[in-house]
This record gives sequence, structure tokens and C-alpha cells, in this order.
Amino acid sequence: MNTVANRSIFRLGESETNRVEAFSDGVLAIVITLLVLEIKVPHLSIDDDATQWAALTDLVPTIVAWVISFVFVLVFWVAHHYLFNSLQKVDRGLLWLNGLFLLFMSFVPFPTALAGEYPATSPPLVLLSGTMLGAAASFSAMRLYVLRGHGLIAANAESAARLALRRSLIAPTLYAIGLVVAFFEPWLSIAIQVLVPGIFFLPAKATGETHRSRAPSARD
Amino acid sequence: MNTVANRSIFRLGESETNRVEAFSDGVLAIVITLLVLEIKVPHLSIDDDATQWAALTDLVPTIVAWVISFVFVLVFWVAHHYLFNSLQKVDRGLLWLNGLFLLFMSFVPFPTALAGEYPATSPPLVLLSGTMLGAAASFSAMRLYVLRGHGLIAANAESAARLALRRSLIAPTLYAIGLVVAFFEPWLSIAIQVLVPGIFFLPAKATGETHRSRAPSARD
Amino acid sequence: MNTVANRSIFRLGESETNRVEAFSDGVLAIVITLLVLEIKVPHLSIDDDATQWAALTDLVPTIVAWVISFVFVLVFWVAHHYLFNSLQKVDRGLLWLNGLFLLFMSFVPFPTALAGEYPATSPPLVLLSGTMLGAAASFSAMRLYVLRGHGLIAANAESAARLALRRSLIAPTLYAIGLVVAFFEPWLSIAIQVLVPGIFFLPAKATGETHRSRAPSARD
Amino acid sequence: MNTVANRSIFRLGESETNRVEAFSDGVLAIVITLLVLEIKVPHLSIDDDATQWAALTDLVPTIVAWVISFVFVLVFWVAHHYLFNSLQKVDRGLLWLNGLFLLFMSFVPFPTALAGEYPATSPPLVLLSGTMLGAAASFSAMRLYVLRGHGLIAANAESAARLALRRSLIAPTLYAIGLVVAFFEPWLSIAIQVLVPGIFFLPAKATGETHRSRAPSARD
Repeated sequence: MNTVANRSIFRLGESETNRVEAFSDGVLAIVITLLVLEIKVPHLSIDDDATQWAALTDLVPTIVAWVISFVFVLVFWVAHHYLFNSLQKVDRGLLWLNGLFLLFMSFVPFPTALAGEYPATSPPLVLLSGTMLGAAASFSAMRLYVLRGHGLIAANAESAARLALRRSLIAPTLYAIGLVVAFFEPWLSIAIQVLVPGIFFLPAKATGETHRSRAPSARD
Repeated sequence: MNTVANRSIFRLGESETNRVEAFSDGVLAIVITLLVLEIKVPHLSIDDDATQWAALTDLVPTIVAWVISFVFVLVFWVAHHYLFNSLQKVDRGLLWLNGLFLLFMSFVPFPTALAGEYPATSPPLVLLSGTMLGAAASFSAMRLYVLRGHGLIAANAESAARLALRRSLIAPTLYAIGLVVAFFEPWLSIAIQVLVPGIFFLPAKATGETHRSRAPSARD
Repeated sequence: MNTVANRSIFRLGESETNRVEAFSDGVLAIVITLLVLEIKVPHLSIDDDATQWAALTDLVPTIVAWVISFVFVLVFWVAHHYLFNSLQKVDRGLLWLNGLFLLFMSFVPFPTALAGEYPATSPPLVLLSGTMLGAAASFSAMRLYVLRGHGLIAANAESAARLALRRSLIAPTLYAIGLVVAFFEPWLSIAIQVLVPGIFFLPAKATGETHRSRAPSARD
Repeated sequence: MNTVANRSIFRLGESETNRVEAFSDGVLAIVITLLVLEIKVPHLSIDDDATQWAALTDLVPTIVAWVISFVFVLVFWVAHHYLFNSLQKVDRGLLWLNGLFLLFMSFVPFPTALAGEYPATSPPLVLLSGTMLGAAASFSAMRLYVLRGHGLIAANAESAARLALRRSLIAPTLYAIGLVVAFFEPWLSIAIQVLVPGIFFLPAKATGETHRSRAPSARD
């Protein structure tokens, strides 16, 4: 009977985190898909093949900006996925931090469109780096909050979470640098925006550990 | 066997509320993310940095309107989350009230865009306050409906729900005042729109209680 | 062991219907929320209050079209919700019929915008009625398909489903009439579009029965 | 106790695949619904019925492009649904491949809008075929990855998955041909885009088998 009760509580926590995950997934899925709406169909007076190809070539910066932001959102979706997988429940504080994270994420389409319209100029890249900084910093804040003993994280996931927190400070640091250099060297800022997700792609071990953490707590 | 049967019924109710939650989450996630589409990329004939910064400065009211509406939708998403967490099933009446709530919520992007285009003038703020009033009032109506004995609410969640209902009347009252003052003092109306979510951020106790209510009913 | 196996199969079916429901809910939630994007912010050269109010008054037909389509999508979401609740699994045939239904549903924003732009004229109302007819007819086709013995429906839900099928033929019939009269009497077509969801709002018994049908099958 | 542990692990895997499915479903549902936004309401100076009908007739290529892309996304959603149903867990590699697949899928609205604007000309059809090729190829890559022994696929689903992989190479091959012929014979490229989903509609057996594969693994 005790086991049933425990399982019920566990499941309650799970269903709670599930709904926050579902809402966040919804927002992130919409952001990632809306990005394409900023690539506008060119309206040409002459529409032979050559003119169309030229118009499409003009869209290359917009498409590059789209890919950068797509990968950015995807990387944070994966990180969000692993973070919430290591939680056994959520509380109001985490809900609001998550809301702040989503505020920055859902702003992404605007500076992305701006960067596509005015490629390699300062203002759009300052705004884009600032948005990415805000998203990355609020994500790190969630990791920190979770570790500050509100009983949100599964006990056996703590050491992995501590490691993940330390690693997760890399992204906001780099985006802060990207924000500053965007004022002087737009291309360097773009390079940083390409680099950061690249870092996330490589080392899968630490966060992978966080991921498997729920199984043991369900097993006993 | 009895326990299994009871649990099945419980789970049925849960899966039912889950789908209404999922649909509502979907709508709210889309609304909150669509808001950004109303921030339009400025098309400039001269695109040096100074002109771009000036154009971005012109967008500040639009961005403020975006943040206000973002927080508005987020606050009601959290409230919706806690309300449906305290339910054991939904019926048709609640489905329609929820539909009315979603009607107002999904209208939000339009007055938000209007308020960004014509900042601090009466008509957009009348429309925005009216939309927020409609959403808040239909949300209170859901709280009331749930308490009117259709067996929707978990027994042990009732007293907390009664408290939450009383508290939930604050928002529509303030938005009604905001609607009236928008005709005369647009800035006062904006102040109210900033204030109301602020109230929701602070006291987490009453609704937190509602939240934990499902555990005991699952335990027996 | 047998019971466990049976439950597993049951759950498998449930998880299957869940994903189709989730995808359909996603599409319907997006459709219902996208509708508002067709209400465009008026761009005024003079922006005093009187001019703004006049411009908002001009938007009334667009807002009426938006409400009609919103209610249309909501009613079909509720109907879809109850239909899939009475199923124990889905097959490919149903997936494709559901796809056809979603094709018509996701087209709704276009004729809605058209009807708002050219109010009470024939072409938009012909297109809108045609789209509603297509959606309603493909929904009835799903009801019919489910009853044609592919083992999709829970045994004890059959009689209720038969009743629901008979009732569900009312909507396509009325929309077919609406389509024809739209060529001659646009207002009569609008009246039908307002009327049909009204019918769905009233009698909750038959479909309510379908709804409860899953409980007994889970109990034994 | 062993059974409970096993089931927990199984459920963990299931809940993991569930969230990737939910995110992918979200993206695909949004893509499929956003497509309609590219059908723009014509703005006419004279708005009598004849002018409106003429304007709607001009939209036929746009609507045809919309239907082709809608069916394309739907077919891949169904394929994605069956693929993930045969998995017991996901890993990072699959997450990134799935991300690549979603990148191509979420790009679809742009070439679709382009093909509607400049019907039966080369550039849009090259871009659309290329996007479909990218999506189809990354989907086949997922099928291949899953079979390469990362323990993702349920043991009893392997033979069906091998068959499905062989079958799933047809689509990228045909889209590659469509891409090449789009440079010379736009209509032939359109014919291929209509043909490929048609192939998917017909033979339901092989993939159907994959589908049922989860039941036995849940039973023991």
C-alpha cells in the first residue's frame, strides 16, 4: 500500500512536470516553426527564372539567420528536455523562471528577422545576442534554482545537475561576449552564435547522466 | 479489484482533464508566441546603424505592449494549470466556459498590436482592457461553475477552491476599472494592466494548497 | 497475467489514440488561434481617437467572421474529443480520414479572412460554407468508418455512436444548404453558420453517453 | 517486484519517446497549419462578385501548392508516428537527426508559398523538391540510425523496421529525381510531388506490422 502511495506521489510530480514541459514544448515548437514566416516571398515584376534565382540569392542572409535561430531553439529545447526529466516536481518559483526563459525564447523571431533584413550590421546582432543571452541566463537560473534545495530534483540526479549547471554557464558567458563585440565586429558576433550550439552538440555524457537519473528513483 | 476499478475511473477523469488542458495549453502557448509576430521589422531606405537604432527605439511601445500581454497570458496559464489540477473530471458546461475563456485569450494579439501601433491612446487600451476583463471574468466563471456541485472538483480541494474564487474576483474588478479609465486616462489603464499580474506573482499559498489536493485522493 | 496483458493492449490502443488526438488538438488549437492574425491593425494617417474608433468600427464584420469561425472550430474540437474518447484504437484508414478533416479545418482561416474583407457577398460565403461542409462531411465519414466494424470502437459505445452518427448528419446537410443559398442570399448563409453550432450547444445527452463508455471497458 | 521495475524502465523509455513525439507533433502540426497563411486575401478595388471570383481563380495554383505540401507533411507525420511507436527509447543522436528532419519540415511553408506565387516555374520547384528531399533523406537516416544497434528499437520490431527502411528509400530517390527535372520540366517535378504521397497511401502492411510491435514487449 505504501508503494502505491509513493508511486501516486511520484506520478503526481511527473504529471505536474509533464504539463510544464508540454506548455514549454508548445511555445518552443511554435517559435521554431514561426521563424520561417519571416522569410518573405519576393514579389517580382519580371518573373523569369534568372530574376527569381537572383531574388532567392538575396534571401541567403535571411535563411542563414533562420538556421542559426532554429539550431539555437533546438539546442535549448533539448537542454530543457533533460533538465525537466531530472525533476520530480515543479513549484511556482520554477514556473516563473521558466516563464522568463520562454519570454526570451519567444522574442527570438523578431531579432532573427531583423538580422536577415540588415545582415552583418550591429543593431540586429546586438538585439539577437541580447535575446540569446537572456534565454541562456534564465536557463542557467533555472538550473541554479533547482539545486537550491526546493526538493524539486531527484536525489540521485543532484551531482549530475551540479556538473550541468557549471557547464551551462558557458553559453550565457559567450553570448555576453557576443553582445559586446556585436557593437564593433558583427561577424565575430555571428561566429559566436554559430559556435555555442556547436559546443552543445559535442559532449553528451554529463547531461546524458542527468537523463537516466529518473529510472532508479522509480525502481525502489 | 475495487481499488483497480476506482483507480481506472480516477485515471479516466484525469485523462479527460488532460486533453482539455492540452488543448488549452496549445491555444495559450500559441497566443503567447504569436504576440511577437505583431512586432514588425522596420523597412528602412537608409540602413546605417543610427537609422536602425532610431527605428528600434520607435518600437519600444510595441515591445512594452508585447511584454504586458505575454505576462498576462502566462499568469492565466499558471492559474488555469492550478485550476485544472484540482479537478477530477470535466463536463460539457466547463468545456464551453473554457471555450469562452480561450476566445478572449486568443483575441489578445489584436488589441496588443493596436496598443503598440497607437501607444497611450484610448481606443486600443479600451479594447485591451475589455479583452482582459472578458478573459478574467470567464475564468472566474469557471471557478464558480466548478464549485456549484457538478462533482468536478476533488472533495478535499473545495475549501481552497472557495478561497481561490474569492481571490480570483480581484482581476476582473480591476480590469473593469481599467476599461472605464482607459476612456479618460490611458496611462492609468496601463498601470492597472501592469499591476494585476504583479498581484498574482506574490501570494502563492492559497492556490498552492489547491495544487497539492490531488495527492490524497489518489492515495486512498 | 491475462489482465495485465489485456490492460497493456488497452493502454497501447489508448496511447495510439492519444497521439492522434494530440496532433489533431495541435492543428485545431493552432487554427483557432491563427484566426486572429487575419484581423489586421489599421494603419491611419491621422490617429486621433475618433479616427481610431471609426477604423475599429470598420473591423466589425471581420470580428464577427472571426467569432463564427472560432465557435465552428471549437464545436468540432469538442465533437472530435468525444469521438476519439469512445475509440480503443486507430488504424490507417481513420488516420487518413482524420487528415482529410484536418485539411478542411486548417483551410478555415482563409475564407474567414475573405468573409471579413468582403462581408455579406457571395464568393467568401460560398467558400466558407464549402469548407465547413467539407469538414463536417469528413467528420461524419469518420463516425461512419468507426462503426463499420474495424474494431476501433469500444463495444459498449456502439449504440451511442450510432445515435451520434445520425445526429452528425445534420451539420453537413445544413452546410450544403448554406453553400447553395450563399450564391443568392448571403445573409441566409450567415444565419445557417450561426445556427449550426447553436444546435451542438444544446443537447448533450447522446454524446455524453459515448463519453462515459471507456470506464466499463477499463473496469473488467 | 521485478516486473514493476521492468515496467518502470519501459515506461521511462516510453515517456522519453513521448516528449520527442510531442515536440515533433507540435512542429508538424504548426507547419501543416501555417501553410494556409501563405494564401493571402486579395485586395480588390472593385469588389463585385465577378471580380472576386476572378481573384479566387487566380489563387488556384496557390491552393494546389498548399494541398501538395499539406499531404506531404501529413504523410511524414504518419510515418514519424509509426517509427517512434516502434522505439523503446531515444538517444541524443536520434534527437539531433530528428532536429534535422524538423528543420527541413519547418522550411516547407516558404517554397510552398513561392510555388504558389510563381506556378510551374523552375526555381520554386527546385527549392520545394530540395526541401522534400532533405526531409525524406533525414527521415531515412533516422530509420537507419535506429537499426544500427543503439538499442532504441524494440527487438521484435527489427525485421519490420528493416523492411520499412528499404521502402523509405523510395521517397528521397524520387524527390532527388524531382529536384533534377525541376530545372527542365517543372510539370514533371509537380507530378512526382503528387505521386510520392500516393505511394505511401497504398500499402499499409509493412509499417502496420511495425506499429503493433510494442504490444508483445509490454506483455512479458
